[in-house]
Amino acid sequence: MIQFRNDMTADLVRHNASDRSVADAARVSTIGSQASESESNDSGLINFLMRERHGSPFEHNQMTFLVSAPIFVWREHMRHRVGFSYNEESGRYKKLEPVFYLPDNTRNVVQQGKAGKYEFVAGTNFQYALIASDFRHVCEDSYDRYERLMENGVAREVARMLLPLNIYSSAYVTLNARSLMNFLSLRTKAEYSMFPSYPQREIEMVALGYEAHFAELMPDTYSAFVKNGRVAP
Amino acid sequence: MIQFRNDMTADLVRHNASDRSVADAARVSTIGSQASESESNDSGLINFLMRERHGSPFEHNQMTFLVSAPIFVWREHMRHRVGFSYNEESGRYKKLEPVFYLPDNTRNVVQQGKAGKYEFVAGTNFQYALIASDFRHVCEDSYDRYERLMENGVAREVARMLLPLNIYSSAYVTLNARSLMNFLSLRTKAEYSMFPSYPQREIEMVALGYEAHFAELMPDTYSAFVKNGRVAP
Amino acid sequence: MIQFRNDMTADLVRHNASDRSVADAARVSTIGSQASESESNDSGLINFLMRERHGSPFEHNQMTFLVSAPIFVWREHMRHRVGFSYNEESGRYKKLEPVFYLPDNTRNVVQQGKAGKYEFVAGTNFQYALIASDFRHVCEDSYDRYERLMENGVAREVARMLLPLNIYSSAYVTLNARSLMNFLSLRTKAEYSMFPSYPQREIEMVALGYEAHFAELMPDTYSAFVKNGRVAP
Amino acid sequence: MIQFRNDMTADLVRHNASDRSVADAARVSTIGSQASESESNDSGLINFLMRERHGSPFEHNQMTFLVSAPIFVWREHMRHRVGFSYNEESGRYKKLEPVFYLPDNTRNVVQQGKAGKYEFVAGTNFQYALIASDFRHVCEDSYDRYERLMENGVAREVARMLLPLNIYSSAYVTLNARSLMNFLSLRTKAEYSMFPSYPQREIEMVALGYEAHFAELMPDTYSAFVKNGRVAP
Repeated sequence: MIQFRNDMTADLVRHNASDRSVADAARVSTIGSQASESESNDSGLINFLMRERHGSPFEHNQMTFLVSAPIFVWREHMRHRVGFSYNEESGRYKKLEPVFYLPDNTRNVVQQGKAGKYEFVAGTNFQYALIASDFRHVCEDSYDRYERLMENGVAREVARMLLPLNIYSSAYVTLNARSLMNFLSLRTKAEYSMFPSYPQREIEMVALGYEAHFAELMPDTYSAFVKNGRVAP
Repeated sequence: MIQFRNDMTADLVRHNASDRSVADAARVSTIGSQASESESNDSGLINFLMRERHGSPFEHNQMTFLVSAPIFVWREHMRHRVGFSYNEESGRYKKLEPVFYLPDNTRNVVQQGKAGKYEFVAGTNFQYALIASDFRHVCEDSYDRYERLMENGVAREVARMLLPLNIYSSAYVTLNARSLMNFLSLRTKAEYSMFPSYPQREIEMVALGYEAHFAELMPDTYSAFVKNGRVAP
Repeated sequence: MIQFRNDMTADLVRHNASDRSVADAARVSTIGSQASESESNDSGLINFLMRERHGSPFEHNQMTFLVSAPIFVWREHMRHRVGFSYNEESGRYKKLEPVFYLPDNTRNVVQQGKAGKYEFVAGTNFQYALIASDFRHVCEDSYDRYERLMENGVAREVARMLLPLNIYSSAYVTLNARSLMNFLSLRTKAEYSMFPSYPQREIEMVALGYEAHFAELMPDTYSAFVKNGRVAP
Repeated sequence: MIQFRNDMTADLVRHNASDRSVADAARVSTIGSQASESESNDSGLINFLMRERHGSPFEHNQMTFLVSAPIFVWREHMRHRVGFSYNEESGRYKKLEPVFYLPDNTRNVVQQGKAGKYEFVAGTNFQYALIASDFRHVCEDSYDRYERLMENGVAREVARMLLPLNIYSSAYVTLNARSLMNFLSLRTKAEYSMFPSYPQREIEMVALGYEAHFAELMPDTYSAFVKNGRVAP
């Protein structure tokens, strides 16, 4: 019954996102309400805005995702406050599903280097086996007790306290291109970033899910973001 | 050439707003990612959320307006920070149009009562005539000088400093239902409000423009807002 | 070595909070920069601001707390975004201490009533014993495995994934009176609240810790908050 | 009676700002609640946080300024939303003082270059004289009419609509080091900035007022900000 996963999903539920909205918003500043509908040079304008860090035109759009990720990822995710809206599955109102994160052996689990600038490298077979066995044991045991406590009349909000941080939870996440670029700049690791970031791998997986949709919905904005060093304007 | 207006416009440019988005977001909390698509009782759920002040489900939507209003209105408007995005016409990048606000005689211009709880009543013919003549004079004179300064090589950002607060400016305003309800509760005066507000008439005109669109796009949410005393959840 | 607690602590670390700052800020609006230093009627003014929901004067102050609470409490706490700043202990940068929350028998653990309006009542001796034994078992077992994984070279950020939600974590929390009143109105249950709230008991314990300091630092503001139905202005 | 000024003032009213608060907040993440009081290497830690763009530790402090500036400056200032609190003099509640901004001949008033990258150079004597005479005329004339309208019973909130954008207004502004650094990075022009900004001179004057206080209150933070290219973390 217990399920282990090692992926994150970020499904696009609704959106109102386009490069055009960025260019239109910017032209209100420079042309006013008479801004024509010409797309002549949206991508040039968008690149200019990104480079000069004019951030506000990137806020007039919206993407809503249904994201599934373990709680330790949500804890990092929800530190992003500005331009983010959340509705997460509640352990007070519903029984949580027995779905847990288990890193597979493509996840580098050994940390090397000194504080502040770590690198992660692959583990040994023994280490991956130990992780798998400990994770399985703890998840199964704690979920059994979680269910038993509820069967014995203990409230969901109390019983859930002993569930581990790798249990999955899902949430609606609504953001705009500006807040998303801030998220991407901090939660992905890219060679060509002007400011290097060292995100935990699992939140980066969520970020990459967002990034794929973003690149498709707003190709000029995305390409300007990449071209200008992944700095959020 | 100079133009006087006494209206505010709030044109809906783009939106991704529906009652359904509210209900869906709320159901993620209680049902999780398996939330079915049944609309069976969206309006009951929405009313429950409003009454119990569960605000976050009202954030997963977006409305973008092109608003035209005088600068003294924008000054009040931009105090609304959370869940609002703006791109306003810039007096640094473009020459402002000679369009000014002139209150007509449906605008109560005389203030009565003591501090904190004023009432506004109609003015006399003389008062309206005085307003019209003073406004016309100042707007024409200052706009002439504004143009002359620029013709003489003075930068737009300097010349505009002598324009009056009733000159119109336009902006893109993006908001969601939650931030909009907060705006409406503070910027409209309604008999049945749980918390009475005393907005300046001109920003209330902008608010009423938003309100008409909101009522149409999200009828269940709007009706729950009204029914529960116009308190933003 | 493993420690169980059933309390929350909110220690005031630094603050710059006074009723005077509220009154001074409000007087800038009505008197301007010449606002005299007279305290003559600060409390009357503060009560007026609270009643009329003029919220901004309550933002010009600051309180920083060092808070110790289990992770399931932090998850709720960090949903408060506006006017809140956080720095939390990191499971990536340090080994977490073996301190866990265990509800004692003063905590009502049985939920009664229908969805949306639950009540909590005391459990039986058997239920409390079951909770204690399950919590002890899971905390000890998972912490042992957490340590063993790290001893075997697995990174902290991976090993911590199997720790339960009731492990304590500490954080700096900075807020102002306005954001705090919003927190208190949602995270405490009080008979005389204009809008009833149904917080989980454990976050209410944190809220009550804040409330005691708030009442002492800003007595007029606090008393106006209570008198006006615990509605954040 | 009418007064002309060409300066901006930013007086520090209250504060709770220190480098120590930054280091303490950061140490909660890495050491937890046992963080010792040793200042051994606060400045090294602060520089690390700035360089690596760990922004949250810079939020646990507060500065409140009483700022006096013309309305066209406030319009730009109030676009800064996150981490800023405002209480401004109200033209609805009080009669505004006849104090106006008049640029003197140290203000470069002629704009050169193409859109997006302007430079400002000194004006001619004729240009400065024209500005002075136009500003004086408009300010005196409009303020006379403003007073006369009110003497004739027209409400302050209506009469003020014809005042020019260069009239002074004062406000309480509360911010923290992180929001202030964002403001400084966008509203000052400095050779060594990683991202060049082109602020209007008058808001830069306000920014420089803040900057002087910031440098004194939080010298290590300020020096790390400058050293790392004036990028807000």
